[in-house]
Amino acid sequence: MTQATNQSWGGRFSEPTDAFVAAFTASIPFDKRLYHHDIRGSIAHATMLARVGVLTDDERDLIVDGLNAIETEIERGDIEWSIALEDIHMNIEARLTDKIGITGKKLHTGRSRNDQIATDIRLYLRDEIDAVAAELSRLRSGLIELADREADTIMPGFTHLQTAQPVTFGHHLLAWQEMLTRDHERLLDCRKRVNVLPLGAAALAGTTYPIDRHVTAELLGFERPSENSLDTVSDRDFAIEFTAFASILLMHLSRMSEEMVLWASAQFDFVDLPDRFCTGSSIMPQKKNPDVPELVRGKTGRVYGHLMSLLTLMKSQPLAYNKDNQEDKEPLFDTLDTVKGCLRAFADMAPALVAKPDNMLEAARRGFSTATDLADYLVRAGVAFRDAHEIVGKAVAYGIEQGKDLSEMSLDELKRFSDVIGGDVFEVLTLEGSVAARNHIGGTAPDQVRAAAQRARDALATLQERRHVA
Amino acid sequence: MTQATNQSWGGRFSEPTDAFVAAFTASIPFDKRLYHHDIRGSIAHATMLARVGVLTDDERDLIVDGLNAIETEIERGDIEWSIALEDIHMNIEARLTDKIGITGKKLHTGRSRNDQIATDIRLYLRDEIDAVAAELSRLRSGLIELADREADTIMPGFTHLQTAQPVTFGHHLLAWQEMLTRDHERLLDCRKRVNVLPLGAAALAGTTYPIDRHVTAELLGFERPSENSLDTVSDRDFAIEFTAFASILLMHLSRMSEEMVLWASAQFDFVDLPDRFCTGSSIMPQKKNPDVPELVRGKTGRVYGHLMSLLTLMKSQPLAYNKDNQEDKEPLFDTLDTVKGCLRAFADMAPALVAKPDNMLEAARRGFSTATDLADYLVRAGVAFRDAHEIVGKAVAYGIEQGKDLSEMSLDELKRFSDVIGGDVFEVLTLEGSVAARNHIGGTAPDQVRAAAQRARDALATLQERRHVA
Amino acid sequence: MTQATNQSWGGRFSEPTDAFVAAFTASIPFDKRLYHHDIRGSIAHATMLARVGVLTDDERDLIVDGLNAIETEIERGDIEWSIALEDIHMNIEARLTDKIGITGKKLHTGRSRNDQIATDIRLYLRDEIDAVAAELSRLRSGLIELADREADTIMPGFTHLQTAQPVTFGHHLLAWQEMLTRDHERLLDCRKRVNVLPLGAAALAGTTYPIDRHVTAELLGFERPSENSLDTVSDRDFAIEFTAFASILLMHLSRMSEEMVLWASAQFDFVDLPDRFCTGSSIMPQKKNPDVPELVRGKTGRVYGHLMSLLTLMKSQPLAYNKDNQEDKEPLFDTLDTVKGCLRAFADMAPALVAKPDNMLEAARRGFSTATDLADYLVRAGVAFRDAHEIVGKAVAYGIEQGKDLSEMSLDELKRFSDVIGGDVFEVLTLEGSVAARNHIGGTAPDQVRAAAQRARDALATLQERRHVA
Amino acid sequence: MTQATNQSWGGRFSEPTDAFVAAFTASIPFDKRLYHHDIRGSIAHATMLARVGVLTDDERDLIVDGLNAIETEIERGDIEWSIALEDIHMNIEARLTDKIGITGKKLHTGRSRNDQIATDIRLYLRDEIDAVAAELSRLRSGLIELADREADTIMPGFTHLQTAQPVTFGHHLLAWQEMLTRDHERLLDCRKRVNVLPLGAAALAGTTYPIDRHVTAELLGFERPSENSLDTVSDRDFAIEFTAFASILLMHLSRMSEEMVLWASAQFDFVDLPDRFCTGSSIMPQKKNPDVPELVRGKTGRVYGHLMSLLTLMKSQPLAYNKDNQEDKEPLFDTLDTVKGCLRAFADMAPALVAKPDNMLEAARRGFSTATDLADYLVRAGVAFRDAHEIVGKAVAYGIEQGKDLSEMSLDELKRFSDVIGGDVFEVLTLEGSVAARNHIGGTAPDQVRAAAQRARDALATLQERRHVA
Repeated sequence: MTQATNQSWGGRFSEPTDAFVAAFTASIPFDKRLYHHDIRGSIAHATMLARVGVLTDDERDLIVDGLNAIETEIERGDIEWSIALEDIHMNIEARLTDKIGITGKKLHTGRSRNDQIATDIRLYLRDEIDAVAAELSRLRSGLIELADREADTIMPGFTHLQTAQPVTFGHHLLAWQEMLTRDHERLLDCRKRVNVLPLGAAALAGTTYPIDRHVTAELLGFERPSENSLDTVSDRDFAIEFTAFASILLMHLSRMSEEMVLWASAQFDFVDLPDRFCTGSSIMPQKKNPDVPELVRGKTGRVYGHLMSLLTLMKSQPLAYNKDNQEDKEPLFDTLDTVKGCLRAFADMAPALVAKPDNMLEAARRGFSTATDLADYLVRAGVAFRDAHEIVGKAVAYGIEQGKDLSEMSLDELKRFSDVIGGDVFEVLTLEGSVAARNHIGGTAPDQVRAAAQRARDALATLQERRHVA
Repeated sequence: MTQATNQSWGGRFSEPTDAFVAAFTASIPFDKRLYHHDIRGSIAHATMLARVGVLTDDERDLIVDGLNAIETEIERGDIEWSIALEDIHMNIEARLTDKIGITGKKLHTGRSRNDQIATDIRLYLRDEIDAVAAELSRLRSGLIELADREADTIMPGFTHLQTAQPVTFGHHLLAWQEMLTRDHERLLDCRKRVNVLPLGAAALAGTTYPIDRHVTAELLGFERPSENSLDTVSDRDFAIEFTAFASILLMHLSRMSEEMVLWASAQFDFVDLPDRFCTGSSIMPQKKNPDVPELVRGKTGRVYGHLMSLLTLMKSQPLAYNKDNQEDKEPLFDTLDTVKGCLRAFADMAPALVAKPDNMLEAARRGFSTATDLADYLVRAGVAFRDAHEIVGKAVAYGIEQGKDLSEMSLDELKRFSDVIGGDVFEVLTLEGSVAARNHIGGTAPDQVRAAAQRARDALATLQERRHVA
Repeated sequence: MTQATNQSWGGRFSEPTDAFVAAFTASIPFDKRLYHHDIRGSIAHATMLARVGVLTDDERDLIVDGLNAIETEIERGDIEWSIALEDIHMNIEARLTDKIGITGKKLHTGRSRNDQIATDIRLYLRDEIDAVAAELSRLRSGLIELADREADTIMPGFTHLQTAQPVTFGHHLLAWQEMLTRDHERLLDCRKRVNVLPLGAAALAGTTYPIDRHVTAELLGFERPSENSLDTVSDRDFAIEFTAFASILLMHLSRMSEEMVLWASAQFDFVDLPDRFCTGSSIMPQKKNPDVPELVRGKTGRVYGHLMSLLTLMKSQPLAYNKDNQEDKEPLFDTLDTVKGCLRAFADMAPALVAKPDNMLEAARRGFSTATDLADYLVRAGVAFRDAHEIVGKAVAYGIEQGKDLSEMSLDELKRFSDVIGGDVFEVLTLEGSVAARNHIGGTAPDQVRAAAQRARDALATLQERRHVA
Repeated sequence: MTQATNQSWGGRFSEPTDAFVAAFTASIPFDKRLYHHDIRGSIAHATMLARVGVLTDDERDLIVDGLNAIETEIERGDIEWSIALEDIHMNIEARLTDKIGITGKKLHTGRSRNDQIATDIRLYLRDEIDAVAAELSRLRSGLIELADREADTIMPGFTHLQTAQPVTFGHHLLAWQEMLTRDHERLLDCRKRVNVLPLGAAALAGTTYPIDRHVTAELLGFERPSENSLDTVSDRDFAIEFTAFASILLMHLSRMSEEMVLWASAQFDFVDLPDRFCTGSSIMPQKKNPDVPELVRGKTGRVYGHLMSLLTLMKSQPLAYNKDNQEDKEPLFDTLDTVKGCLRAFADMAPALVAKPDNMLEAARRGFSTATDLADYLVRAGVAFRDAHEIVGKAVAYGIEQGKDLSEMSLDELKRFSDVIGGDVFEVLTLEGSVAARNHIGGTAPDQVRAAAQRARDALATLQERRHVA
């Protein structure tokens, strides 16, 4: 048993909190990371209270100076966090009262920890979203430039991991970039819904003090005050929506990772990952492992798990605030750290990918990747598509048997399957011809890839602009 | 063993597909629901092919008439779906060729099943999103009107399911409404990303035919063609984003459900659910069970599960299309059915909720719900807030012992805890005074609730407008 | 509005159930699949009621004959299921009363739908578990025999998808088998907890009739009656535990699938999947797609989703039965169908995998897979392991530069890195020597593989025995 | 850029690891918690190596003494962990070599970090499982004893949160206990599969040194060595299975939590939670919040999330070890901490729950909880059950109108609904009679509850015994 009773609510209680319970229920071990935003929110709140006459200007100044001084203390590591004080709010308020006396107690007028924590998280998340957006832009930009440089590099395109048709490496890189464009848009849509002021909702019903929520919103850069106090203290949608964004993003990174791992294998051997992004083995001296993409792929589960955690958390909770909600922070924080780490690693690594064009070309040459082109050739020569498909299918079966690609067969060999085939067939069987012919918006032709890279640059610039405005 | 080999790709194969494998891998049992959108997509594709000269106008007419006739056959139930033909695309194409002969085979020119299925799902999902938005609007509207009517009805507000402060029932209903507003916005944000044309991506690399994707996009009402063919056939973000929207929506419905179930219990007894939304027990004659909210609460898991299913599906898939992706449809379809069913049930039921104001008022009266008001009163009388909190805490402890609410104590009894308390204290201890005093945007005061209802009506109208434009 | 009120509980109700609500809440569309087990449970219940004197023997016979006749009707497709009768129980009971009159109504004595549905699912699941175990055994057996045949086939072993050390193909197949062994054990552990009788719990508290639950348990082959009636009607652990088993199993199958897809690619080219397990492309004539492993990999998400669905469903439900629980059936049924389908496909396909030993061997030869063996050689010659590692690392760097494997270097070249290397080094650089040297339990040496296959055969037999007993 | 290259694998590398990558991929920040088990595993490995002659006895002693000394240093906090050394293994090995020189490098003979980490986690998890089992036993025991004391206390039993039938509080507590019994069994089943030795699998294929894995297994208390080296380094089933166990356990705790929160509300008011397990509000002086059950309910999501994280992690991974697997530790560790914390809190709190029997009784009296008993009475008087149900339904409708329970109606009032009702009806309408009549195994009768408590005590003792043996 302990003396740890929190004096801020102890009046009604006949015994102190159990020591294990105090530690089990405290949030200070993880919500301390919100200190900066807690202080910013408190300063805005005090400023508003002075504006409406609940605090005098002197009281406000005392409070603001005190809070700023505390922030400096925290950044210097001079504060010892107390479990008995439960959370970041009470820790800071207690320190404030230590420093400036009874005026410190007036800061909590017209608010509650329920709207305070909602404000802290929204402020924090808004800043983190901007940091995520910056890394995402950097990665997108790196991919766009690499794609532009590799617009002519031919590689096999796969479906079902079987060679399908030749594509350009630049085209493939822009497919990655396109995934990230949608993520970027989702992130900014999410930001709109984060950027709403909770303060003023108080415990759940609003407050009897003559507050002005528009003032507080403006001071903190929020777009508007929230509409309903009960909803405000209950709502954790912003955390879930961000985690859903992050899950889709990590899914995309896992797909890129999978391809990098495949391409770095001895069997594919399409790219070189610089040594500085790889690690070795303590036992096998020849190993150079693509650790970064593997680890990012593994972190996908981590973020999916956090999404599931938050959805489960909120399921079936009656309004308004319940203690369950304290569990919203760790999944959100870890999601943010993970997303920033993975994006940083990829933004560093992506422009450093080194293609091995000879190996890519050779792989595209094998695997009958121009079979569709041959079928299209037959169609142009008047053969019905379904018959053309059948003819080429047989030529491929022959090629497998003989170990020859279509382009390696003689005209005589090819004519065995259809006598409409003429000497001009070898043009359509070239890889260069195949990719150049797919020349429409979205197609793999080098010219299209370069044009797409330019559009992507412009779209990125537009989206970055939107963030600054929103 | 079977003769089920699909002649459309059999040329390269030396043995027919195993009968069990054919059934195991076929998608027709569930993708047949896409028939209407498959046909619309094909008609637009044929129209575009004629526009660019790949088909003659006569060929186009033959194809369009044939497809329209097939749609009629399907709606009449006159088509027998074939497992051997694998999917909706091959079933319809085979029927078309039966009907119009060799011209039917030309429809597949310049497209592949990979871009075709992506187009079908996007068209289907876009229509379904509009249907979901309509039910969501109906539910929101029902809640807004009920909230307006119940703007003066007092009930206890809870935190931690403990009586916290009095609120109005209208205010509580608007908290629900506010959750749905965010869902509605997310839905329309998702719709933007659904409304993009895949056709033209072909198998993965685009096509060698001189297609015009802007024409097809316009014919199908898509905002623009997709940017990258590899991404286009690989992308299932739209299904995941919709399912994430649906998960948050169902989470919200689960919270409303939880509260309805609580409120309909003998212990709370705050509302009456009309008999037509309840069922009874085969064994206990007195039972009237709130089946609809319970079942909706249960369906939350279903939708969360589908979200997890789709996220898992896409994790680590290399580009471009893989057979795995066939598994995207059933979770999406079931999510849509679930969302529409739950919203319909709630939109029907919500306006029919009957409040029991006497029980609500009595519950608010008990539970010391005006304790905060007493503390605020002491603060106004010059007591420091922390001391006021302690004083009221002791008064509450006394009240629990004596079985008396604060408003039921005599002035003498109250004075025992602080001698600044005067006869005017009883005004702040009334529930009416308490709610009326929370009179700022987002607060629970009846006037604020009515104003919020009006703003909500306007916002709903604006959002409905946005859908029609987007 | 509808006349659909269910007369079995309508007495207390003042208006009929809403037609949409009736359809929305009915379970007959999916719980009809339980008909056989519902009837078996009812027959046992009637038999027990007669044994304790609640029914006469004649009544029992009438009921039993009636139920058997109904089962025949159902199997013939002669029954039309009614939504208004809600579920399988009421549909069968109504039909029974139609057939045998008022005696049919006595069947429901001393039970409720709450314990009845729990009994149906447990009986059904127990049978399905046995079916799953049979397919699992067939797959394990196929892998064991193939592994035995491939005990000498050398392939590269990978870590990080980088060539690590040579292993035998048989060893790799037994790794798959070992995963399935754990699944099999988990399945039988789950079966123990499924095999417990709910009947007698009635609605939630037990019944006032003089039932004998041990008799019913024995008649239905259950190990014992459940211990607590409230728990019995609330418990869905068995469904969750089964779905957790299934999730781990599908995860294992996804890993095997991934490897089959890799191995079937042109880049690896380690195995041939027979044509009958593959499908082609409608557009690319050369394609032979490993559809079965891809689809199984995709179905992993489906089962994970069902697990999450059931866990979410049960979270925070107060006791005892709630309508939410109706949502337990579809995820469980679909999990069962998926597991059985995937296992059947794999059990058919696994023994038909055709290794390409030359390609495997060649791949193992490249990639410096015997680098560890060289390091071990140096250690035996007195070099400290960390120094040996460094020496071999430099030899590998040289090999990459020169395009030579270690075994392809001359003795002189090797000696440049360490002069303790002698002519005997080439023995340890052979792949055969490398695998044969890992000759302890769990190691990859061919002799160990053969011994492990024999132990696996024995263990499988033991586990199959356990199922028959348990 | 950094000089952080790990000299243990740097020979093949041409540039040092990027500093951010080194930090991003290092596991020492979280795997340091494995230090004790890493050292135990190393000591056993060294002992075995000496037993088979790979080390001399002196070398073994030097290593063992060195490792024991390092453990002491760690426990004193005298070790500074190094990110550059990546993980716990390299940190300890480097320290060992510092201390004892070159002999320290011999410890890694015949093993790899891949089998070492698998061994560490299994040893650690086995100890933690035993700790979890101990807390689980304590909670079960607390519930059993409380149930025994409350065997006669009557409360309303609920279905659909509507009053259903009277039950005893002891019976309800045993329902909780029964859930935990299944968890306990699952935990011990999981422990069997954890308790298997990985060491000897080395990197993936086994080792060329003459190791004896049976010796190592015996030294570490493992039941047997693992069967397949490739599987051994790839397998994370044990972590998933444990997390699945934990998810079901937390689901059970969430259900108990939900009920405690309901029961502690002003509306139910069935129990008192001691103040030491509750916290208050900084703003509302009357609040006493059931924080512990709320927080435990919230932690359910956390554990579900970790399960999903691990399942996603392992999906589609090719064999053998991949860097992704490093992500297994944090979810597992956090699951263990969460489970232990929640169980400890509940085991402390459960025996301290204080029933309010008067409130429970009064609630059971209201809500027509003996309606089924009245129907059964009518059946005994010769009325068909369906007719009896209808009659009672009407009496209930009348009671709701009049605000009277069945037992509060006069005989004349009751007779209006059926004239077979006589004066003896009031006996069956008593709550005591109702519960006592449900007198069979699993039923709610006080005698049954006491007998069930005794059986539960015995079963718990048996299971605890099994753990010690297993």
